[in-house]
Amino acid sequence: MSTSPATPAKPSMRDSLVAAAFELFLERGYEQTTVDDIVRTAGVGRRSFFRYFPSKEDVVFPDHEQSLADMTEFLAASADADDPLVRVCDATRLVMRMYAENPTFSVQRYRLTREVTGLRTYELSVVWRYEKIIGDYLRTRFADRRDGTLRANVVAAAVVAAHNHALRHWLRSGGEGDPLAEVDRALEFVRETWSGDAPAPAESDDDVVVVITKRSTPMWRVVREVESSLGEG
Amino acid sequence: MSTSPATPAKPSMRDSLVAAAFELFLERGYEQTTVDDIVRTAGVGRRSFFRYFPSKEDVVFPDHEQSLADMTEFLAASADADDPLVRVCDATRLVMRMYAENPTFSVQRYRLTREVTGLRTYELSVVWRYEKIIGDYLRTRFADRRDGTLRANVVAAAVVAAHNHALRHWLRSGGEGDPLAEVDRALEFVRETWSGDAPAPAESDDDVVVVITKRSTPMWRVVREVESSLGEG
Repeated sequence: MSTSPATPAKPSMRDSLVAAAFELFLERGYEQTTVDDIVRTAGVGRRSFFRYFPSKEDVVFPDHEQSLADMTEFLAASADADDPLVRVCDATRLVMRMYAENPTFSVQRYRLTREVTGLRTYELSVVWRYEKIIGDYLRTRFADRRDGTLRANVVAAAVVAAHNHALRHWLRSGGEGDPLAEVDRALEFVRETWSGDAPAPAESDDDVVVVITKRSTPMWRVVREVESSLGEG
Repeated sequence: MSTSPATPAKPSMRDSLVAAAFELFLERGYEQTTVDDIVRTAGVGRRSFFRYFPSKEDVVFPDHEQSLADMTEFLAASADADDPLVRVCDATRLVMRMYAENPTFSVQRYRLTREVTGLRTYELSVVWRYEKIIGDYLRTRFADRRDGTLRANVVAAAVVAAHNHALRHWLRSGGEGDPLAEVDRALEFVRETWSGDAPAPAESDDDVVVVITKRSTPMWRVVREVESSLGEG
């Protein structure tokens, strides 16, 4: 069983097929490459290709199924005490890490998806699946809120948009710089947007108190308001 | 020229093709219906079909091209004084209005897109185009902000997600209720999220001043902070 193609040693047949496919896509173009060309270059049979990939499009995105499964598993392992927003931001970092592991491949694929409409559409449906996994998790966590479903859908879309903003920027730059730092910065914007949403911590001397007042309010009223917010009024 | 098929009177050939297509899709299923079936039912030639629709998928979404054009035009007509967030919310209302104009058709199409993977993918690419139009507009409006592009992308995704939340809810209900009220409610959530984002008005006695302090900060320091924010320190 140690030679099973599903859990192979060293460059697997699956990896060889992906490598052969990208070699040909870059050389002669995606549309001009057939599955027959790919298997000939990889030196394997046609049936082997379809054992790993349902279609030619799928060989362009060989890692997303695993990444989607990893994200689902990561979110399923969440504790009730986890801040849901922090949790989904961490979940999208998993995806960025996958891209960052192989910058050359990620950039090549990005250029390919810009050129081939069918691949961009494929990519949109992958993005939709990530967003759905995040939305499903948030819907559960926000179930007791009045606008829970709406909030879950909007936050999921925002998190995915922030992630994709950072990812696209990194890919456009040709894979330069630190993509994980970029995605952190983008996700920070989303975190700040809904930062008031975290479950209220127990009161402590380090609580942050926010006072909002009109410029024309007399100082004595501002002081009274601050004191009453602090429970000293 | 008044009989040109592009600007026809009463039930146009285009409308007849859409009606014939949906009659057949509902009767025998989308996959089982060919373009030949559609033109035979509509009583027109095959070339007429392709004059209006590049493919069978396109006949399922006959109104989005117009709606995308309307949205682009609406946003291009914005004034600098318009609150960008209000403006993009109004732009998505145009889309909801299109769905609301023909509830039966909208609900039939929704059910079809749930069943046929290719149509759902098509729909995702349409949604992506709406989001891009909104994002392009916001990127221009936020150009002078430090995180302008990121902000534009995240807000665009949030607006589209809120719109689609309301739309899906209405479609799932079978087209009952007031979809425009539903979308307003959903968009209100997005508006509230970024309500502090409106362009800063000129300073006046009604300015809002925000003071953030730790609970443990001595009152004299809070007062000093408030005074210095008010320009009185």
